[in-house]
Amino acid sequence: MVIHPDTDAIVAAKAYSYLQNKLGYDTEAVALGEPNPETQFVLNYFEETTPRVISEAASEVDSVMLVDHNEFQQSVSDIEKLTVTHVVDHHRIANFNTTAPLFYRAEPVGCTSTILTKMFDENKVEIPAQLAGLMLSAIISDTLLLKSPTTTDDDKIALKTLAEIADIDFDKYGIEMLKAGTNTDAKSDQELIGSDAKSFELGGKNVRIDQINVVDFDDILKRKADILKAMATEADSERYDLFLVLVTNVLNSDSKMIVYGGPKDAVESAFNKKITDDMIDLPGVVSRKKQVVPQLTDVMVK
Amino acid sequence: MVIHPDTDAIVAAKAYSYLQNKLGYDTEAVALGEPNPETQFVLNYFEETTPRVISEAASEVDSVMLVDHNEFQQSVSDIEKLTVTHVVDHHRIANFNTTAPLFYRAEPVGCTSTILTKMFDENKVEIPAQLAGLMLSAIISDTLLLKSPTTTDDDKIALKTLAEIADIDFDKYGIEMLKAGTNTDAKSDQELIGSDAKSFELGGKNVRIDQINVVDFDDILKRKADILKAMATEADSERYDLFLVLVTNVLNSDSKMIVYGGPKDAVESAFNKKITDDMIDLPGVVSRKKQVVPQLTDVMVK
Repeated sequence: MVIHPDTDAIVAAKAYSYLQNKLGYDTEAVALGEPNPETQFVLNYFEETTPRVISEAASEVDSVMLVDHNEFQQSVSDIEKLTVTHVVDHHRIANFNTTAPLFYRAEPVGCTSTILTKMFDENKVEIPAQLAGLMLSAIISDTLLLKSPTTTDDDKIALKTLAEIADIDFDKYGIEMLKAGTNTDAKSDQELIGSDAKSFELGGKNVRIDQINVVDFDDILKRKADILKAMATEADSERYDLFLVLVTNVLNSDSKMIVYGGPKDAVESAFNKKITDDMIDLPGVVSRKKQVVPQLTDVMVK
Repeated sequence: MVIHPDTDAIVAAKAYSYLQNKLGYDTEAVALGEPNPETQFVLNYFEETTPRVISEAASEVDSVMLVDHNEFQQSVSDIEKLTVTHVVDHHRIANFNTTAPLFYRAEPVGCTSTILTKMFDENKVEIPAQLAGLMLSAIISDTLLLKSPTTTDDDKIALKTLAEIADIDFDKYGIEMLKAGTNTDAKSDQELIGSDAKSFELGGKNVRIDQINVVDFDDILKRKADILKAMATEADSERYDLFLVLVTNVLNSDSKMIVYGGPKDAVESAFNKKITDDMIDLPGVVSRKKQVVPQLTDVMVK
């Protein structure tokens, strides 16, 4: 399975590795896929290195720390052979279990980097300015500049703290960063449908949900037929029952979702709307985690 | 299923409820069973009230916070109908999942109350002297006065901090408290095998593991035949495949384990010892969590 880490996933790996090494661990930040254009913009802007990309880990190490995810199907392919000693995350807990006690730090906030900002403070470790720049980028990315409904007061406080450390005007920088992540013309159909995709098992169905940020819906709608073809091909080869591509306009906070596979009635029932031309209109929806996954889960998992 | 909370389970509920109410939540500490004699001694000593005992919660509330456990089979019977919003725990994570993001704070330390001591500090909430007394009792109970291999530096630091707040000589108090918890003569066979019992699903088998603390093995060995009979009856009615009663001498840190049901070869293989007269000798073993469950899991879960 191809995993496409978002900005928070890559930044949180770098930030947590930095913190843990300061606390005496010997860790390396790694990524489960190449950085997307937004993340690449962020790494370039703050002159930070890209983590090494891995897909399995048991040949190198016995134990791992996970950030920004916990579900095994979202992790390295050999996760069941490894001991998970630490998790820092802001998602639901599912398909995750351990044999031994571990560190697990989750909070229902908008971004893993918000939790990490607190953990630096709790452990009295200073955040270097460049790292603060990465971490504030992750918060901007996950919360769409604090406009997503996943945004909490903690995210706002962390963003402000980090912006002071990084000495940056986060509003101005944030729009530039979000735009850098929405250049869809530069991407193939296949890249588009995988750029920020996650897999879920809901009621025995393999569900794949991708999210594409745009500043203009037409950038995607003009190539919808090709995108649907790419979704069909990938659903076939990866055995997804249901493939959803959530297209989100980051400037006005609305989405449209392209639907391939089924059960289609579950999708219509989850959002209380009809699918028309393989698409469902989702005004006001910007968060997969808060406005898509729970709604589907309610309908598909009995 | 009958659940028998230990001192940490009851104390952590009281401590976390106190903390959360200070932070603006409206919570009530409840227990999943009556306090055992050790816990009763602790509550009497510090003149604290016993939490209300419940077995289900959905008729009263929509959401719950869990302390000192996460596995659904160790929780209220209707846990799947409830939203778990917070967990503070020091056990492995298993048979636990949520639909939405949540607060989850786990650390591989000896006692939940150790984590809570940190959380009071992080949230800048003072621990009242009586509550500190309860919390240090939980640490003494879970770590057998810091002698269990589950003991970490964090537990030692928390115990010292709490002893200062409670103004108590924890060594002297601790021995008195542990002895209060080991009066096995006062308990029926049925009480004994359930006093600190937990259920696990390992490789498709229902495994029940009880722990009895003693200051003299003979207190239990003299009634082994009757205890085995009680284990057989309960295993039958509750459908346990394997029922283990770990008898731990808290003064010299050794255990003997009574074995009922099977697979017996898995038990022998887990501890690399033969079962003789339904019993297996486990010198140096005092921790179910660290020295029994992982060893069984390794053998029973493929």
